[in-house]
Amino acid sequence: MNIETLKQNLREIPDFPKPGILFYDVTTLFKNAACLQEMLEALYELYKDKGITKVVGIESRGFILGAALAARLGAGFIMARKPGKLPAEVLEETYQKEYGTDTIQIHKDAISSDDIVLLHDDLLATGGTMAATHQLVKQCGVRQSYINFVIELTALNGRKAFPEEVEIATLLKL
Amino acid sequence: MNIETLKQNLREIPDFPKPGILFYDVTTLFKNAACLQEMLEALYELYKDKGITKVVGIESRGFILGAALAARLGAGFIMARKPGKLPAEVLEETYQKEYGTDTIQIHKDAISSDDIVLLHDDLLATGGTMAATHQLVKQCGVRQSYINFVIELTALNGRKAFPEEVEIATLLKL
Repeated sequence: MNIETLKQNLREIPDFPKPGILFYDVTTLFKNAACLQEMLEALYELYKDKGITKVVGIESRGFILGAALAARLGAGFIMARKPGKLPAEVLEETYQKEYGTDTIQIHKDAISSDDIVLLHDDLLATGGTMAATHQLVKQCGVRQSYINFVIELTALNGRKAFPEEVEIATLLKL
Repeated sequence: MNIETLKQNLREIPDFPKPGILFYDVTTLFKNAACLQEMLEALYELYKDKGITKVVGIESRGFILGAALAARLGAGFIMARKPGKLPAEVLEETYQKEYGTDTIQIHKDAISSDDIVLLHDDLLATGGTMAATHQLVKQCGVRQSYINFVIELTALNGRKAFPEEVEIATLLKL
């Protein structure tokens, strides 16, 4: 099992969610026990010495490895969610999408300024949702944060959505 | 850290999502690293000797401990999702809600008949979504399956939604 094996287990679905889009289906990586372990251990190796205290996963595929990684690192797990889902007081950030805008929220008391935060999602496309979530984490006063994705669609140049000093790691570059 | 400590860390939110409903907010359990470990280890102890090959988590809070538990058990992780979210061919089950119906899906090739399956969600209320997901797993020809939740709202009698022979375990009874 290695990165090439992961690539072979990733399913490509043409025309989802709409015609002309090639969708990378990570469900085939999660359902394969060996792939799940490989991804989790690769991420753990990257962050085990960073002193991470909170992992933020983005709704909802980012919850999967985000939570497993939080548990593996001995950190807490935080959900970044669409509006209306989090029951207590929230911080929110609205950002531009291809058509219109979208909003992402975290609980106001989810993160404190002394946390060292790892933000996780499954796939880096244009980076809009993650960049907005990163802003929310900065609003909490956090001084050190890291970002990771399982897959990076390099042609979309999603890294441009982030300040240069942010450390971004991805496992599979497509 | 023990079950009583978990209870003390669970946040209660009155009138969410609508007036008259007391919402149990599990986000405060996930964000606390010690609580996250305690829940994961308690579930791991329950299932470590069952030969589990797949864990099914229900969208989207069920993804959190579901995926962490899959990784801990060395199993694969499967998402049960609302319609329109899974990109490949699906099996689906429609079930009764308080008002109207709802539908839950899994990928058709997610589970095979020789899998031993653990189904997970955060909270057992009336049990409708989990009972429908359990039906989907049975449609895959699975002979042995287990169900768990972190929290059980005992007054709602959700266990009645399941056949008597199904093994259901919950960590916190409220």
